[in-house]
Amino acid sequence: VHLKQVLQALPTSVSLPSGAESIEIEAFAPLDQAKAGSISFLASAKYRRQLESCQASAVLLTEKERENCPEQIVAIVVDDPYLAYAYLSHQFDKTPKGSQNIHPMAVVHPTATIADQVSIDAYAVIEANADIAEHAHIGAHCVVGEAVSIGAHTRLQPNVSLLHRVVVGAHCLIQSGTVIGSNGFGYAPLPNGAGWQSIAQNGRVVIGDHVEIGANCTIDRGAIEDTIINDQVIIDNLVHLAHNVVIGRASALAGQIGIAGSTTIGANCSAGGQSGFTGHINIADNSHFTGQAMVTKGTTEAGLYSSGLPAQPSGVWRKMVARIRKLDTLFERVDALEKQIK
Amino acid sequence: VHLKQVLQALPTSVSLPSGAESIEIEAFAPLDQAKAGSISFLASAKYRRQLESCQASAVLLTEKERENCPEQIVAIVVDDPYLAYAYLSHQFDKTPKGSQNIHPMAVVHPTATIADQVSIDAYAVIEANADIAEHAHIGAHCVVGEAVSIGAHTRLQPNVSLLHRVVVGAHCLIQSGTVIGSNGFGYAPLPNGAGWQSIAQNGRVVIGDHVEIGANCTIDRGAIEDTIINDQVIIDNLVHLAHNVVIGRASALAGQIGIAGSTTIGANCSAGGQSGFTGHINIADNSHFTGQAMVTKGTTEAGLYSSGLPAQPSGVWRKMVARIRKLDTLFERVDALEKQIK
Amino acid sequence: VHLKQVLQALPTSVSLPSGAESIEIEAFAPLDQAKAGSISFLASAKYRRQLESCQASAVLLTEKERENCPEQIVAIVVDDPYLAYAYLSHQFDKTPKGSQNIHPMAVVHPTATIADQVSIDAYAVIEANADIAEHAHIGAHCVVGEAVSIGAHTRLQPNVSLLHRVVVGAHCLIQSGTVIGSNGFGYAPLPNGAGWQSIAQNGRVVIGDHVEIGANCTIDRGAIEDTIINDQVIIDNLVHLAHNVVIGRASALAGQIGIAGSTTIGANCSAGGQSGFTGHINIADNSHFTGQAMVTKGTTEAGLYSSGLPAQPSGVWRKMVARIRKLDTLFERVDALEKQIK
Repeated sequence: VHLKQVLQALPTSVSLPSGAESIEIEAFAPLDQAKAGSISFLASAKYRRQLESCQASAVLLTEKERENCPEQIVAIVVDDPYLAYAYLSHQFDKTPKGSQNIHPMAVVHPTATIADQVSIDAYAVIEANADIAEHAHIGAHCVVGEAVSIGAHTRLQPNVSLLHRVVVGAHCLIQSGTVIGSNGFGYAPLPNGAGWQSIAQNGRVVIGDHVEIGANCTIDRGAIEDTIINDQVIIDNLVHLAHNVVIGRASALAGQIGIAGSTTIGANCSAGGQSGFTGHINIADNSHFTGQAMVTKGTTEAGLYSSGLPAQPSGVWRKMVARIRKLDTLFERVDALEKQIK
Repeated sequence: VHLKQVLQALPTSVSLPSGAESIEIEAFAPLDQAKAGSISFLASAKYRRQLESCQASAVLLTEKERENCPEQIVAIVVDDPYLAYAYLSHQFDKTPKGSQNIHPMAVVHPTATIADQVSIDAYAVIEANADIAEHAHIGAHCVVGEAVSIGAHTRLQPNVSLLHRVVVGAHCLIQSGTVIGSNGFGYAPLPNGAGWQSIAQNGRVVIGDHVEIGANCTIDRGAIEDTIINDQVIIDNLVHLAHNVVIGRASALAGQIGIAGSTTIGANCSAGGQSGFTGHINIADNSHFTGQAMVTKGTTEAGLYSSGLPAQPSGVWRKMVARIRKLDTLFERVDALEKQIK
Repeated sequence: VHLKQVLQALPTSVSLPSGAESIEIEAFAPLDQAKAGSISFLASAKYRRQLESCQASAVLLTEKERENCPEQIVAIVVDDPYLAYAYLSHQFDKTPKGSQNIHPMAVVHPTATIADQVSIDAYAVIEANADIAEHAHIGAHCVVGEAVSIGAHTRLQPNVSLLHRVVVGAHCLIQSGTVIGSNGFGYAPLPNGAGWQSIAQNGRVVIGDHVEIGANCTIDRGAIEDTIINDQVIIDNLVHLAHNVVIGRASALAGQIGIAGSTTIGANCSAGGQSGFTGHINIADNSHFTGQAMVTKGTTEAGLYSSGLPAQPSGVWRKMVARIRKLDTLFERVDALEKQIK
């Protein structure tokens, strides 16, 4: 592909030195592994040294870094090289395109509404009154339940289960194995510890536009009201959202996060992998959490929050745990010392 | 639906004021969102204030709260309003019913035994010698492996995998994506770090009656003996039970819990989300664990157990971790002070 | 089965007392539950006492333990009884064998290459240019994506998704619900918190030989380069490997571990359940981590690493957390005491 054509994926046009437009570009590559025919990017000053010996044909960089670009490489000046890389990367995307057909081995209920240019792969099941908008792609083995609604250009990888009445917006991606609309974990205890009476989960899951959800996630439907994921939210693999959770606009959740029932996460929040949020709390906009955070209370202010003790050699760790368990006595000893000195 | 009919789902009858029986009820709603035609419930005194302005047609409450019910709302007095809500909620359940048919696109092995009024959805696979009891519902894309047994009225959501010889009791619910009967993680190390020799996992998973299991869980079969889940157990999403785990009657496991091999959880226990249990320990009946608990030893007494440091602003947290790492020196300094004072 | 025949699964031959060769063996059993017709093993001195009353017909044990074997039991002397058990256990494996057929309800793309003696179960989907080597077994409902390569004797349980261009070696086992080749969690932030621009994930997942992967795992493809799992690695259920992770030879990962992007785990490492590894770190060969470890830095030396505070009764725990939060003041008080004494 000509460089000029590659760059058409950027939202704003860039100027190129004469002759550079027709350079052939075959792939993206990191600075230290690029070859002729590659395009690369300098996203952080700490990789600047790799520019010197870089073999790429073109590099995305900021105005400030332009002077560090070797002469033989075409410098493409952009405001945000990492974002530019994100835009351009899709030019080289190897993900197979949907066929824009309905596979003969898909089961589509006669009452379902399927727009033009929808592709539905083998063994997908589309149930009664489902509504799938134009250019959506339904992977093999997906289940699109009763009265589910899927927006335009949304893609489901193989093996996604969208249970009844789930609503997914436009331009979303839902990855393999993810289940949306499972029952919330709602039970009333029977008298005398006899067991549990389930509570019917009658809410929906409502997902906005431009939402991306990873593989093998589980997102429960609300009990009475809906579970809600707002526009531009991104969610990694194996994340669990309980019933009536609300995720604010453009928030980002890393792998294996769990959020208990009725918790509301604000807009533009992020949380690291394996973080856990207790139920019925509110997290303020722009709150950020490091990995494995144990979030037991809401936040009212933007900021970075953390918990946990990082791993150490086990001998050191064991001593530390023993010390912590004797903290009580240490406080008492210091109390006693203070009294004696007085 | 008439109120009288709605209330028939309660295990004991309730008395209604004259004329109230034929009130039309359309939905359940929380106190603060209920409209005419809704039924609501007052499960805790902390919501009592919402009663005043509540628009519901009827409210479930205790005898003690009856006097706080506005005149225009029908007060339905029950022992446990939350449990009553749980019973009644199913009157409004919107989950599609199975068709009580075997879909023509299901593959059912000729040696499988399928009772009357079983529904099997599209693309389900029922393997040799499987046995499915009456009124069971097998969702689309489920795999019911060789010699699997499924009790009456048990429902599998789409995409459940029950591997060979798994036994599921009656009145169970297993949600989408869950795998039961996967191989336990059993390996013997080869000499000199060359790798691992797997151990055949020949036990089964045996699940009692009235058990509910969430989405995308994994429950491994036993190595020699069985993995066992007793009656009335409820399990949330993404839970991992290793081989030969035993879960006692009516225990409740929240999302993303992991229980390592051969651990036994007693009856009427509960554990919060993301808790982890080490292998080969015994947890006493009525033991409860808060979320993210790190359970490294068994318990011999009922009670509530916890671990972990709740999240704080990262600056505070970093200082705290640094302090903890210097605890050793603090103990030494206090030792020295005590000696000096003596 | 005759004992002699059972023992043929061992890599080296063992000598048996005369007459023992034709003893009938029906099953493996633990020492304390074995009956006539069972074979058992003594893997650790702590079970030695169970030998006395053991009813097994034969027991695997070391030379050192031979004298403790009751007369009526055939003692089979091996170097490593647990490893011997692992080898022999497969003689009693009840896992159904694949049919060595392609099920008529499988969809196989005409450009896919299927070797001899491959079995493909019902509703499997094999996409364009996939390549499946001899004796591989593809379970029901598996998706083998475009240009995926699967080595000889590799088995996929039902419901596995291998997305485009994934490479799996020979003699591997991949369990139900696992997704390999999902998109890495790569996004560039849009200006002003507007949301996220996804980065195309164009790398592959490349898996070596004799790798075993549990149920409902997610293994993301690399962004530019590949995610790599080397030979003999074993991985338990619900494990999440992010893009560009590398797992060294013969390492073992327990259930619900998460490893963030671009982290490299060395050879012969192990980690306990629910451990979490931050991104872009390197873990030295022979590093081991206890369960729930919070691994925020790489290791340069072999050894055992830990973190976390084990669960305690909640009253004790609450006091401990309160004490830890006051550590700062305790340090100050000790500072003050030291000054006063000087």
